[in-house]
Amino acid sequence: MAYDGTNFSGFQRQPNERTIEGTLTKVVNKMAKSPKEHISVYGSGRTDAGVHALGQVAHFDFPYDLKEINMLKGLNSMLPLDIKILDVKIVSSNFHARYDVSGKKYMYRMYLGEFKNPFKRFYTAQWKFPVDINKINIALNDLIGEHDFTSFVASGSSAKTNVRTIYEAKCNFNSDKSEIIFEFYGNGFLYNMVRILVGVVLEIGAGKRNEHDILRLYKIKDRNEARRTVPASGLYLKHVYYEGDDPKHPTKLPYHQR
Amino acid sequence: MAYDGTNFSGFQRQPNERTIEGTLTKVVNKMAKSPKEHISVYGSGRTDAGVHALGQVAHFDFPYDLKEINMLKGLNSMLPLDIKILDVKIVSSNFHARYDVSGKKYMYRMYLGEFKNPFKRFYTAQWKFPVDINKINIALNDLIGEHDFTSFVASGSSAKTNVRTIYEAKCNFNSDKSEIIFEFYGNGFLYNMVRILVGVVLEIGAGKRNEHDILRLYKIKDRNEARRTVPASGLYLKHVYYEGDDPKHPTKLPYHQR
Repeated sequence: MAYDGTNFSGFQRQPNERTIEGTLTKVVNKMAKSPKEHISVYGSGRTDAGVHALGQVAHFDFPYDLKEINMLKGLNSMLPLDIKILDVKIVSSNFHARYDVSGKKYMYRMYLGEFKNPFKRFYTAQWKFPVDINKINIALNDLIGEHDFTSFVASGSSAKTNVRTIYEAKCNFNSDKSEIIFEFYGNGFLYNMVRILVGVVLEIGAGKRNEHDILRLYKIKDRNEARRTVPASGLYLKHVYYEGDDPKHPTKLPYHQR
Repeated sequence: MAYDGTNFSGFQRQPNERTIEGTLTKVVNKMAKSPKEHISVYGSGRTDAGVHALGQVAHFDFPYDLKEINMLKGLNSMLPLDIKILDVKIVSSNFHARYDVSGKKYMYRMYLGEFKNPFKRFYTAQWKFPVDINKINIALNDLIGEHDFTSFVASGSSAKTNVRTIYEAKCNFNSDKSEIIFEFYGNGFLYNMVRILVGVVLEIGAGKRNEHDILRLYKIKDRNEARRTVPASGLYLKHVYYEGDDPKHPTKLPYHQR
C-alpha cells in the first residue's frame, strides 16, 4: 500500500488516534461484515507520524473466499483517499508481513530552497546549508556493509542488537535540482535510523563534519554524537522485501536478533 | 506568489473564512505595525477554493520605505507555509495588479490512474476514460485565436463580454505518463472557463464528442452543452502577464470590456 502519512499519527494502532493500522483494521473488519472473531492486521513494521509509504506491506487472515482483485477494489473503495492499496496477494498461511521481512528500502526527500515550497511542505524536509555531493557520496559509501549502528539509533528503541547490513546507500538530485533524494536499502533499520543517517550525511556534505565521520561514529557508539534527526515529512518507506524477492540479498535478520 | 489552495476558501476575502487575500492583508498590516489607514491588497484576480497558484500577483501601498529583499523575507517569515512569496518589486504608483493584466497562463493537471494517488489527491483531478492525444490536440487547436466563449462560462460570471483570445493551448504527459498536463495562455479567462475547457477537450479525447465540437459550441453559445466542470484541485494559476512582459502578445483586455 501507499499512504500519505501527513494526517496519521503513524502506523501503529492507538486509541483515539487516526493511524494506518487502525484505519485498515476497521475497513477489513467491515468488509468481513460481522466476523466471529476480530480480524487483526499485521504490518511489516511501524512508520512514525508524518512518515509516508510507497510500498508498505500488511497481512491479515480473512475468513471468506474473495478474489484478489475484489479485495483490492473493495479495500480501495472503503479506505480514505490518503491510503491506497496497490496490490493484493493471497499468501500461504505461514506468511507473516513482519517476521518474514528480508530487507527494506527507504527514500528521503530533502528540499534545498531557501523558503519552504508550499506544495512540498508535507512531502519533503528543508536543508539550507551547502550540499557538497562528493563529500556526501564518500559518507554514503561508508554506510555500505554490516555495521553497529548504535550511534544512529534514537532512544526508545527496543532492538536486541544494533548491527544491521546496508546494501545500498545513494543520492540523486531531482530533475530541477531543487531536491536531494536519498535511498537506503538494508536488511533492517533501527528506530529513527534513516532520519539520523540523513542528518549526519548532510552535515558531512555541509562541511560540518569530517568526510569519514561515520567511521568514527561506528566506533564510539554514542547517539549524542549524531544529534540531528531530520523531519518525518521527507521519509518514505519505499519497498519491503521478503525472502526470495531479491536473490542478491537473501539474508533475513532473524527475528530474535531484532 | 505561489500557494497551495487546498486549505483556503479561495483568493477573495470573506468574513470568517481562511482566504489568500485575507491572510496576506493581515500580514501586510501587521508588518506596517499600526498603519494610520488599513492597507488593502489587490490581486490579479480571484482563484476559487482549492485552486493553486505558481505565479499569482498582488499589489499594495506600503506606508514605509522597505527594501524589496526585506519585504520578501518579512512576508515569508510571517505568512503560513501554504503561501510563499516568490518575488517582491517596488512598482510605480500607477501600477494595478488587476487592471493592468495583459494575459494569464493556467495549468491543469489530470491524473490518469484507476485509483486516486494519495500524494496527488489535492494537486490533480482524476480522469478514468480513454485519452486519445491526437483528438485532444485537434480540440486544443480549435481554441487558438479570438472566440466568443459563452458556452464555456459558468453561471455567476459578471463579465461584460465573453470574447477572449487564446494564444496557446497545449498538453503533455508528465515523465511517468501518469498525468496529462494542460496549459492555456490567453488575454483573459472567464469564470470557470479553464475547468470547463479541460472537461470538453477530455471528452473529445475520450470519443464522447466530435473532434471539432468546440467549433459547434462557439456557435450555439449555450453553457448547458458543456456540462462538465473538472475539479478545482487540478488547476494552477501559472503566470500573470502585464503590459510589456510579452511583446508577442501585448494586447491587454480593456477593463471596461471584462
